Amino acid sequence: MQLASLHQHIKQRLDASLQDLINDLPDAAPRLKESMLYALTNGGKRMRPLLVHLVGNMLDIPDNDQRAISMAIECIHAYSLVHDDLPAMDDDELRRGNPTCHIAFDEATAILAGDALQTQAFSIVAEHPMSAFADQRRAQLVAVLARAAGYSGMCGGQAIDLAATGKQITLTELQHLHQLKTGALLTACVEMVCLVTEQLDSNHQQLLCCFANRIGLAFQVQDDILDVTASTETLGKPKGSDEARGKNTFPSLLGLDGARQELAKLHQEALQALDGLPYNTDYLVAFTDLMVSRSH
Amino acid sequence: MQLASLHQHIKQRLDASLQDLINDLPDAAPRLKESMLYALTNGGKRMRPLLVHLVGNMLDIPDNDQRAISMAIECIHAYSLVHDDLPAMDDDELRRGNPTCHIAFDEATAILAGDALQTQAFSIVAEHPMSAFADQRRAQLVAVLARAAGYSGMCGGQAIDLAATGKQITLTELQHLHQLKTGALLTACVEMVCLVTEQLDSNHQQLLCCFANRIGLAFQVQDDILDVTASTETLGKPKGSDEARGKNTFPSLLGLDGARQELAKLHQEALQALDGLPYNTDYLVAFTDLMVSRSH
Repeated sequence: MQLASLHQHIKQRLDASLQDLINDLPDAAPRLKESMLYALTNGGKRMRPLLVHLVGNMLDIPDNDQRAISMAIECIHAYSLVHDDLPAMDDDELRRGNPTCHIAFDEATAILAGDALQTQAFSIVAEHPMSAFADQRRAQLVAVLARAAGYSGMCGGQAIDLAATGKQITLTELQHLHQLKTGALLTACVEMVCLVTEQLDSNHQQLLCCFANRIGLAFQVQDDILDVTASTETLGKPKGSDEARGKNTFPSLLGLDGARQELAKLHQEALQALDGLPYNTDYLVAFTDLMVSRSH
Repeated sequence: MQLASLHQHIKQRLDASLQDLINDLPDAAPRLKESMLYALTNGGKRMRPLLVHLVGNMLDIPDNDQRAISMAIECIHAYSLVHDDLPAMDDDELRRGNPTCHIAFDEATAILAGDALQTQAFSIVAEHPMSAFADQRRAQLVAVLARAAGYSGMCGGQAIDLAATGKQITLTELQHLHQLKTGALLTACVEMVCLVTEQLDSNHQQLLCCFANRIGLAFQVQDDILDVTASTETLGKPKGSDEARGKNTFPSLLGLDGARQELAKLHQEALQALDGLPYNTDYLVAFTDLMVSRSH
């Protein structure tokens, strides 16, 4: 199967699982429930679940485990987007071509939807059906997910990003910021899969985490490049918005050519990490290519 | 030791643990770190940790386990206050006599501080030192905490509260709202302690949860009464704010006398639940008396 078809398949299956997850909640707070579903199924590319699936299949972990990890990761990802879009944060009205959660609902509901989605992620890791082996690792899975999502990961990255907006920072600082803001959760996808793999060489785990780290950064560099070069229609959000709000980006620090070189470097490093693995990494190579060449 | 002295002792010890927790975080995002500490140590009464301690001592669970549960619960409680105070939610500028988090810092930082505190709670349950027995129960502890904090608990309760503001609801609806908004987390204190108790009769556990449920509601009824009867200075926030913003309260539904009767009824039911337990419940009786007679 081509990666694109596989991606489509994973996306459809996960969308259905996430819909079931929210539909199964009681109806006590219908507007909150609706906003959680909206945030979770608002046309996301499901890059993280695809990564979980590709690494999970490569390491032969059961479907159930892949699904639980993907659902939890997507709940964290969706919550972070809802909160990042709020007026007090990035103040975005469009996301993937649709109104952001606080526009489609209201600000209070969006704050609560984000809050409840974060909690939901930990519920999934703690309780969603998983294999007997993964069941023994739930606490460690929670620990990995919390480290990636919290102060020392995504939340911290967003705080550093806000503090750096309108100021000039160094390339190292920008890389660190994105390693926390985007990279931590992508790396957690791989770490969580590794945690539920029964036998895994620690060197190979390290290579996989290095790979995730490089594609996490590459993803962000490509995001920054697209913000400069793509059309608003393709992006599903206003182009040039990074510059307009004084965000530090790879093109603003390195120029567009410099950013493209940085992207090529990260691409190579990701492929090198894969090279060291004794598995068939064809899909992961294709995934890496997709991450750096995507047009939206 | 009198309950008041014990409470003071618990409060000091927990404040110190929470301070250590935040101080031990890396300095990558100093403003976020500072706001998390501010939210966590902003003069909270630590009623939930006191409850954890009293039930924990009664059931003879180790100090470490009590501490981890208390810290996690306080992280969830603190995050919920920070978000509830936001302009888009209850728009409160004072909490316990001090500026609320978004006033002391800014709105974006307050949103992130709440987010990161929620994550921190799950980190604690997953990783903080606990006894060997409790260590085996971490996933279940996460599940209980997440259920109490999320859509089917605290978050859902807050959403129902927002939806009901300015509308007339029934007593049953008001009770349900507070069972989710306040009661769920108080009950989780007891459930989490029960989970790490090596031997516990399921009837006794049920009585303890019933007790927690009753004091949870009683706490809220007393809160509503104080909003009408106490001074702004004693409350540490503007008095009469519930009425001013069209909140449904026990006094608004039942009148002040009716609310006091409801409080007396809940008080009795809480004591009855304790009566069925084969333990020395003197401290828990004193705690119940404190909850219904507190003046702020």
